[in-house]
Amino acid sequence: VKQYSTDVLIVGAGPVGLSAVFSLGQIGLRSIVVDALDAIGGQCTALYPEKPIYDIPARMQIAGAALIEELAQQAAPYNPVYLLSRRAIDLTEQNGSFSVAMSDGSVVTCGCIVIAAGVGAFGPNRPPLANIEQFEGRSVHYFVRSAEQFRNKRIVIAGGGDSAADWAVILAEVATSVTLVHRRRAFRAAEATQKKLEELELAGKLIIAAPQSMQSLESENGLLSAVVVKSDDGAQTRISCDALLCFFGLAKDLSALMKWGIGASRNGIPVDYATMQTSRRGIFAIGDVVSYAGKLKLILTGFSEGAVAAHAARAHLFPDRQFHFEYSTTRGRPGIEKVA
Amino acid sequence: VKQYSTDVLIVGAGPVGLSAVFSLGQIGLRSIVVDALDAIGGQCTALYPEKPIYDIPARMQIAGAALIEELAQQAAPYNPVYLLSRRAIDLTEQNGSFSVAMSDGSVVTCGCIVIAAGVGAFGPNRPPLANIEQFEGRSVHYFVRSAEQFRNKRIVIAGGGDSAADWAVILAEVATSVTLVHRRRAFRAAEATQKKLEELELAGKLIIAAPQSMQSLESENGLLSAVVVKSDDGAQTRISCDALLCFFGLAKDLSALMKWGIGASRNGIPVDYATMQTSRRGIFAIGDVVSYAGKLKLILTGFSEGAVAAHAARAHLFPDRQFHFEYSTTRGRPGIEKVA
Repeated sequence: VKQYSTDVLIVGAGPVGLSAVFSLGQIGLRSIVVDALDAIGGQCTALYPEKPIYDIPARMQIAGAALIEELAQQAAPYNPVYLLSRRAIDLTEQNGSFSVAMSDGSVVTCGCIVIAAGVGAFGPNRPPLANIEQFEGRSVHYFVRSAEQFRNKRIVIAGGGDSAADWAVILAEVATSVTLVHRRRAFRAAEATQKKLEELELAGKLIIAAPQSMQSLESENGLLSAVVVKSDDGAQTRISCDALLCFFGLAKDLSALMKWGIGASRNGIPVDYATMQTSRRGIFAIGDVVSYAGKLKLILTGFSEGAVAAHAARAHLFPDRQFHFEYSTTRGRPGIEKVA
Repeated sequence: VKQYSTDVLIVGAGPVGLSAVFSLGQIGLRSIVVDALDAIGGQCTALYPEKPIYDIPARMQIAGAALIEELAQQAAPYNPVYLLSRRAIDLTEQNGSFSVAMSDGSVVTCGCIVIAAGVGAFGPNRPPLANIEQFEGRSVHYFVRSAEQFRNKRIVIAGGGDSAADWAVILAEVATSVTLVHRRRAFRAAEATQKKLEELELAGKLIIAAPQSMQSLESENGLLSAVVVKSDDGAQTRISCDALLCFFGLAKDLSALMKWGIGASRNGIPVDYATMQTSRRGIFAIGDVVSYAGKLKLILTGFSEGAVAAHAARAHLFPDRQFHFEYSTTRGRPGIEKVA
């Protein structure tokens, strides 16, 4: 069993979890971050890497992936350990210290826990197609790391939201062909993206197969060769392709946390706004997963909650010490000890 | 009497006040911002324009002035009106609407007020030197807008904190001479800046006159010609110069707000954390000026409080309407109406 030890375990590597690494590091606390996805960034990476966010303070606009990159850089001087592709499952407490067992069997021992689990996303929703598992990671994808991997490929994109629409627009420029499969011709996407889809369709750079739904996958020599789709009237069409990208959102699950004795429910985790502490001492929660009077589900609110939780975590870990509040401008560059 | 009318009057044009313009604009509210200083940015502009801030989320580091520029750009699509060089003084309320009279006689009528007054700074501290007023704005300065205005000038800088030290380092490269006057040889400045001061002194690019205190100013033809300083043993020295920069901090004053019936005291303004509303309905407060359990005096906390106050202000202004929470990624580019 792989064992880890740290001051604070952060559950969730989304933007709010990453900012908590920084807030904790600034006041001298080390952290380990666990996430079910195989990359940091949560929904920003998985659902809208290219989509501009307009309400990060002092950023006119920043795409989800770029935001994550900046936050990770800012956290880096504090040497966080990222434990990806695994979920925090079992919690035990002994002598004021917590042990959390992960879905892969590894165990993290820590003095505090900060839960930044967002909506509790733990993986992509998989469409109900026979044998789809056998193509995953090779020709069936739920995330796109870079557009380049699809250059000169024939692509089918399935889904009707932001991610499907955004990636269709981006990949239309690099792929040999892009077919966008959706139940309706309308997409839940930004106005500009919808318009761009129509332009690309008119220019022959994109096929919108709608209303259509996926029926089955075909393969040759173990590789995906085609996606079979069906229209409302039952007519089937075979779309030859090299890769299928499915964007049906993230599966949501907070069930493991509901067993932690912290009051977690489908509505989130209640916290004391002054400390972000849950009903269980030493366990804090921040970001979209929490509930308190006046809670706004904004990334910038999660940043602030992370700072509050960090200070409260330090007070929990060192109950007998007095701390002097210091501004970052006084303390100097992160990660470098201040010389008195 | 100049009259203005708006949804929300923001008192204070520091980083938190500027971010409130954006948060209010995003949910359809117009704002006017009043500030005692002659430029937006509060302490970021006045005290540490060049100093890096490390704890703005998703910014490895950003100087005070650059932060203000970004926040102002982000607010600009909502067309805020900035009323500078004047203070909010008298408050009256009639039929659920507020009127605030400014120190220059102008009056703003509004439905809500958001106070982002920071420490209540209203101007630079002036050293007790005879006739200093007559040189102000020409050869005696309390802020530096750009280093260029001092190129090839002989400069005296007075003060012992960040601003004095930072500007001494910067101006040593452009001015003919820089003399830094302080009561002690030690400066309340970042380690790196202290070290740089010593290097510049060794290289002959800077004179540190310490321990010394300013005694008087001399002039020729109405222009500043020298600063006379005195050491602890009473010995006087005459330093010829073209300009004197004084950095003795900002004078702090919340006295006008203390008459507004909002519970303001020297310790700040108590608010309900869920709405940022003060004890008086329709008047909100955010940023360093507020107090509530768990309050952290961080800029990022003020950003979050601004979003909370904005939503509460809207609920106050439109008590009968229901609002749907919308993410910036869905709403699209700020300032442009969303097409349904």
